[in-house]
Amino acid sequence: MNGNEFGRLFRVTTYGESHGDAMGVTISGCPAGVELSVDDVQAELDRRKPGQSMITTSRGEPDAVVINSGTLDGYTTGTPIGMVVQNKDARSGKYEPYVTAPRPSHGDFTYSAKFGTRNWGGGGRSSARETVNWVAAGAVAKQVLEQSEYDIEVKAHVNQIGDVEAPPVTFEEMLEHSEENDVRCAHPETAEKMMEVIEQYQTEGDSIGGSIYFEAQGVPRGLGAPRFDSFSARLGQAMMAVPAATAFEFGLGREAREWTGSDRNEDWEFDENDDPRPVGNKHGGIQGGITTGQPIYGEMTLHAPTSIPKKQRTVDWETGEEKEIQVVGRHDPVLPPRGVPVVEAMLYATILDFMLLSGRINPDRLDGQVGEYDTPYHPSSPDNE
Amino acid sequence: MNGNEFGRLFRVTTYGESHGDAMGVTISGCPAGVELSVDDVQAELDRRKPGQSMITTSRGEPDAVVINSGTLDGYTTGTPIGMVVQNKDARSGKYEPYVTAPRPSHGDFTYSAKFGTRNWGGGGRSSARETVNWVAAGAVAKQVLEQSEYDIEVKAHVNQIGDVEAPPVTFEEMLEHSEENDVRCAHPETAEKMMEVIEQYQTEGDSIGGSIYFEAQGVPRGLGAPRFDSFSARLGQAMMAVPAATAFEFGLGREAREWTGSDRNEDWEFDENDDPRPVGNKHGGIQGGITTGQPIYGEMTLHAPTSIPKKQRTVDWETGEEKEIQVVGRHDPVLPPRGVPVVEAMLYATILDFMLLSGRINPDRLDGQVGEYDTPYHPSSPDNE
Amino acid sequence: MNGNEFGRLFRVTTYGESHGDAMGVTISGCPAGVELSVDDVQAELDRRKPGQSMITTSRGEPDAVVINSGTLDGYTTGTPIGMVVQNKDARSGKYEPYVTAPRPSHGDFTYSAKFGTRNWGGGGRSSARETVNWVAAGAVAKQVLEQSEYDIEVKAHVNQIGDVEAPPVTFEEMLEHSEENDVRCAHPETAEKMMEVIEQYQTEGDSIGGSIYFEAQGVPRGLGAPRFDSFSARLGQAMMAVPAATAFEFGLGREAREWTGSDRNEDWEFDENDDPRPVGNKHGGIQGGITTGQPIYGEMTLHAPTSIPKKQRTVDWETGEEKEIQVVGRHDPVLPPRGVPVVEAMLYATILDFMLLSGRINPDRLDGQVGEYDTPYHPSSPDNE
Amino acid sequence: MNGNEFGRLFRVTTYGESHGDAMGVTISGCPAGVELSVDDVQAELDRRKPGQSMITTSRGEPDAVVINSGTLDGYTTGTPIGMVVQNKDARSGKYEPYVTAPRPSHGDFTYSAKFGTRNWGGGGRSSARETVNWVAAGAVAKQVLEQSEYDIEVKAHVNQIGDVEAPPVTFEEMLEHSEENDVRCAHPETAEKMMEVIEQYQTEGDSIGGSIYFEAQGVPRGLGAPRFDSFSARLGQAMMAVPAATAFEFGLGREAREWTGSDRNEDWEFDENDDPRPVGNKHGGIQGGITTGQPIYGEMTLHAPTSIPKKQRTVDWETGEEKEIQVVGRHDPVLPPRGVPVVEAMLYATILDFMLLSGRINPDRLDGQVGEYDTPYHPSSPDNE
Repeated sequence: MNGNEFGRLFRVTTYGESHGDAMGVTISGCPAGVELSVDDVQAELDRRKPGQSMITTSRGEPDAVVINSGTLDGYTTGTPIGMVVQNKDARSGKYEPYVTAPRPSHGDFTYSAKFGTRNWGGGGRSSARETVNWVAAGAVAKQVLEQSEYDIEVKAHVNQIGDVEAPPVTFEEMLEHSEENDVRCAHPETAEKMMEVIEQYQTEGDSIGGSIYFEAQGVPRGLGAPRFDSFSARLGQAMMAVPAATAFEFGLGREAREWTGSDRNEDWEFDENDDPRPVGNKHGGIQGGITTGQPIYGEMTLHAPTSIPKKQRTVDWETGEEKEIQVVGRHDPVLPPRGVPVVEAMLYATILDFMLLSGRINPDRLDGQVGEYDTPYHPSSPDNE
Repeated sequence: MNGNEFGRLFRVTTYGESHGDAMGVTISGCPAGVELSVDDVQAELDRRKPGQSMITTSRGEPDAVVINSGTLDGYTTGTPIGMVVQNKDARSGKYEPYVTAPRPSHGDFTYSAKFGTRNWGGGGRSSARETVNWVAAGAVAKQVLEQSEYDIEVKAHVNQIGDVEAPPVTFEEMLEHSEENDVRCAHPETAEKMMEVIEQYQTEGDSIGGSIYFEAQGVPRGLGAPRFDSFSARLGQAMMAVPAATAFEFGLGREAREWTGSDRNEDWEFDENDDPRPVGNKHGGIQGGITTGQPIYGEMTLHAPTSIPKKQRTVDWETGEEKEIQVVGRHDPVLPPRGVPVVEAMLYATILDFMLLSGRINPDRLDGQVGEYDTPYHPSSPDNE
Repeated sequence: MNGNEFGRLFRVTTYGESHGDAMGVTISGCPAGVELSVDDVQAELDRRKPGQSMITTSRGEPDAVVINSGTLDGYTTGTPIGMVVQNKDARSGKYEPYVTAPRPSHGDFTYSAKFGTRNWGGGGRSSARETVNWVAAGAVAKQVLEQSEYDIEVKAHVNQIGDVEAPPVTFEEMLEHSEENDVRCAHPETAEKMMEVIEQYQTEGDSIGGSIYFEAQGVPRGLGAPRFDSFSARLGQAMMAVPAATAFEFGLGREAREWTGSDRNEDWEFDENDDPRPVGNKHGGIQGGITTGQPIYGEMTLHAPTSIPKKQRTVDWETGEEKEIQVVGRHDPVLPPRGVPVVEAMLYATILDFMLLSGRINPDRLDGQVGEYDTPYHPSSPDNE
Repeated sequence: MNGNEFGRLFRVTTYGESHGDAMGVTISGCPAGVELSVDDVQAELDRRKPGQSMITTSRGEPDAVVINSGTLDGYTTGTPIGMVVQNKDARSGKYEPYVTAPRPSHGDFTYSAKFGTRNWGGGGRSSARETVNWVAAGAVAKQVLEQSEYDIEVKAHVNQIGDVEAPPVTFEEMLEHSEENDVRCAHPETAEKMMEVIEQYQTEGDSIGGSIYFEAQGVPRGLGAPRFDSFSARLGQAMMAVPAATAFEFGLGREAREWTGSDRNEDWEFDENDDPRPVGNKHGGIQGGITTGQPIYGEMTLHAPTSIPKKQRTVDWETGEEKEIQVVGRHDPVLPPRGVPVVEAMLYATILDFMLLSGRINPDRLDGQVGEYDTPYHPSSPDNE
């Protein structure tokens, strides 16, 4: 509704500006009984943290999360989980020249056009810093799914930077290799080429676009609420909300336009349980807006970062001047490497939401024992000592 | 959806348990350009704060609020306002006896029956401590309304405690007297009697019910979304969410059952602007679910606090024992006095939500200058120095 | 949001004006596999139909419902159920005098103040005719609940008309007697007195208020989403949306203000399954906003019908004239008798919504066999012949 | 929530299966005072109607819409607009072989896996027939926008079929040429080639994919609710809900991955009103999730129709047999030509929703005269004769 909330039953509400006091996320609708520690969340935050490598901004944010509510003795209680990450290394001064002279292709002008004002330091609310909240929420969704009786796994990797494209990789390769290199590409040789390209643009004071391939395995058949809330429509919303996203594709994606029905259609066969199964997965795990049980996969395109040291031109709406600007500051030369945990988080959150909506995971409690009372998670319980 | 969110365009999301680390509220959908300081919010929080008088719990909570986001240089920016109140004086130990032996008529058992667990210290999420979030949200709504071009005012007072009932008072009397005494009754003599009654029950280790009369003046005609979201239906939801509420009435309320149509109906006359106006206000400001422009008024009944030192009986579901309990701790002997700011907050939030939904106050910005960009609220602006 | 929708998972969307072409209701979120026929719905519609007796309007509406979608061979398919009831006996001519001269205490003025226009025939959208949609939706909810593994029953009756009040009745008495008389009071002697009172007011060209007592048995413990969507808050919204509602109470209701904590609190005992159970039900089946498993009960006050033949005064905003009016037409002298099925419908819809939200009834399908495919309900299946 | 609703303030709720009795759509939240006739809606329905040409299914549906509510004397009243389209030419018999033997790449299996059953005739709820509802809703949105003070225009055309791609066309060319040929391509020579390709696949008993280019002009700057409800995220959801959609792109779309920041970024210049304007529109009208005032444009990829006469293989889950099927029936060999009005409808609905959310168009009434009453649209008014 107001842009700061995502999900229907697993509801994520966020706040925070890049140079505000703190980022915050509230998760309303996380089932009770999920083991959840600060470390579970912190581990994911560390993956998107700035300053991890040469190709990420040098902003010195520890991104230390605190959990203010919703857990007791290491387990969720079903009540909302409030988390806060303080902003530490905000240096707004550098942004003063842009207050009324918008940076090219940023949200500077549009935020001011919508609200009449904006928190201009570091891009304010339009900054990708907001995704710290999303990753925190995704970390919680991941815990719920991992502790459920389902065996759902999500992974993403960077499959293209500029014109350097990785060959297709398996899910196992993604699991094994995507976190090995700074660019988060699961194909090591391609990763090296990508690094070269990135460093070259960085040296030139420029930036470059790229894309992320994502995949979810183990998502059960039958998820998705046709029609406006089909699995693909909701995933489309989630992914197009990712900063700098300009394209969302699943299955054959854009290429499907050149395929015939007979080539794209997939016959049905019986699987090992004598259940119907499509013979292939060109459909990307979704038919009629509902999951088939095959892996869900697709791609996100992220445009090049708009903050570049190269000279550009803008206008100052207060003074009426045209002027030259160079966006100095601490910026990523490319977005997909840090976007990987963000895309994974949105995928986790979307899947969990559909799992709750279908009753596969009980919305009140992970153990599904509706109406059974118990309160074991307290200091005097031997289980917790 | 998940119980932790209120409103459609002015959206309030909360978290926190009585003895958790902190209470938190996110307001998504507050228009930009509203002057808002921590003091504005703190002033309202101080009104519901514990330890104000003999008849409120002695829990030592400073209830100091911090605003983590959504404002810049004292004005809202249109982005979500995140606020946090740390819990300081939580002493959970006293609650250990109740972990598996529910206190009579509390939410102890029902929370455990829903979630299988609960944060049992101080009542956890079911505690009225949660209303600190609501009052903070109401304080923001109040600022928006006060700075709008509308002249809307809200006030409530305690009109009954036990069998001590205040005579009808005017809106002006509420404004003048309701904050003068600890019981928040606008009729001074009745307030004294109420105090006596309360102190007597307190001495006896008992508690007593009561009620709050509320009124909103200046609400323009034409608000309310028939039919399920009529003004009365949404206000009904808001008010029945108040802890301990057992009845919601507006206009003649319950009494309307004994009135004839001819006595209750109100003829139309022309007002000073030659607009139709009902000759009276037995309808309570709402006809057909939509506001008439007359004051909106009604009553909330709050049952007696369930935490009482008197001996009661319970059962321990873990040990299978029946046992006697006395709920010691720091508790209010009566709820309405501290409920007054809560009821006002919910009324403010409800009114603002309808004002935004009707376009009377622009959802993006208070000045309504849609599409106009400006960014004056920064340190270098002379207006802000 | 826009007032024409109710529920979160069991979503009811309605349209229609009193003298428009048709009333319509869409139910989105009804689980698949529920046996549902037109007759199931029609039976409930017949209970609220006009022209049933001397004390209901003589408008000749057959209220014949058609189901346009969502069922196959007598079972729901999980897709939205679209139902339509044509309006047959609309005679708008009589309403022409009120187009710009609002009837006292109707929605005439407020609808025009909100929208600038209105369908003025018969009260248009503000007419209680809209509740035909609600009753249709409630009939579906009732079928779902009856066919679930839960044993949930809902009943209401008229417990007061004017100053004639029925003594408390049992649930069984409601089931047995409430449909025996035109006034729908489960206490036969009181029903007779009520009839006398109603007929007297009718003779005088007047109308009278009244109230409805409702009760739900078998609602399991643990339902309700604290805090803004507590069971009582959502029920409050549902009930306050009923046309002419001015008060909603549950448990002790308004009376709770005069009770001490020690009198109102209920000790816990073990029930026959060794589960904790409150020793009484002064709490009305809800504690901390969540159901206890005890019956949920309460009262709705409905003010007197505003359409009365007695002379009243109004103003015509077009001509600037003050004038006298007599609202002739076909009107009920009292609302509760026809309100009984409406209140029951809203209670059914609210309970089912919470049952789905808690996963007790699977949102996709009544049998809860998630991910299992089957399609037995087709003509060639022997089960359906 | 349940998949049958779209939009926040302009809410569209639909029902209907391909071979059910009727399709239905309810629009809740359309402002009052909009001139709206059955013809306005019918004109758009006729554009997506089957049987228009050789390359569309020969199913003989007149698709005659009726408006059951929400208008009076040709103007909307602000109350919900209920519309119904009867299904006439449903021949379910042909679909019997597929009841338990799913057609390749249809929703047959997934719907059964979700609900355990499905209305199997003609694809039931998963059929693109559902989009008749969307086009009806879009027709209403279009009227609202056209009668507003804004000059917003939407148009789409088919820009690729198989490997036949149209060169870029101007908005004016789309307006002028896209409806001239059966394939709805605004580039006449390409249209001819597309027709040849389509007919060839049709002859071979096959089908082919394609894409739709869409553009919206005149959308004001400042629309979009960062962050999850950014303009691009919501448009992504809307477009990915279109049957057979596998990719959504805006601006440079997928290509953006190969662009540098310096090439993609657009300097700011002053426009004729001395407002900042980007020097180009590679950003596709959206920056930071909010509109810039530049045209919004993008592409939708629709995969080839899955219903093809070619022999395919499936399994029957009831009999356990593997078998060969040929999907005879009346099917489109390509989707984009009939998808053009659907894409336009979703774009209109999305834009209007954001216009209402920003207060640019008043949610209650088109004239924005909040609180002013009037009721001019009745038979005795000279304006309506």
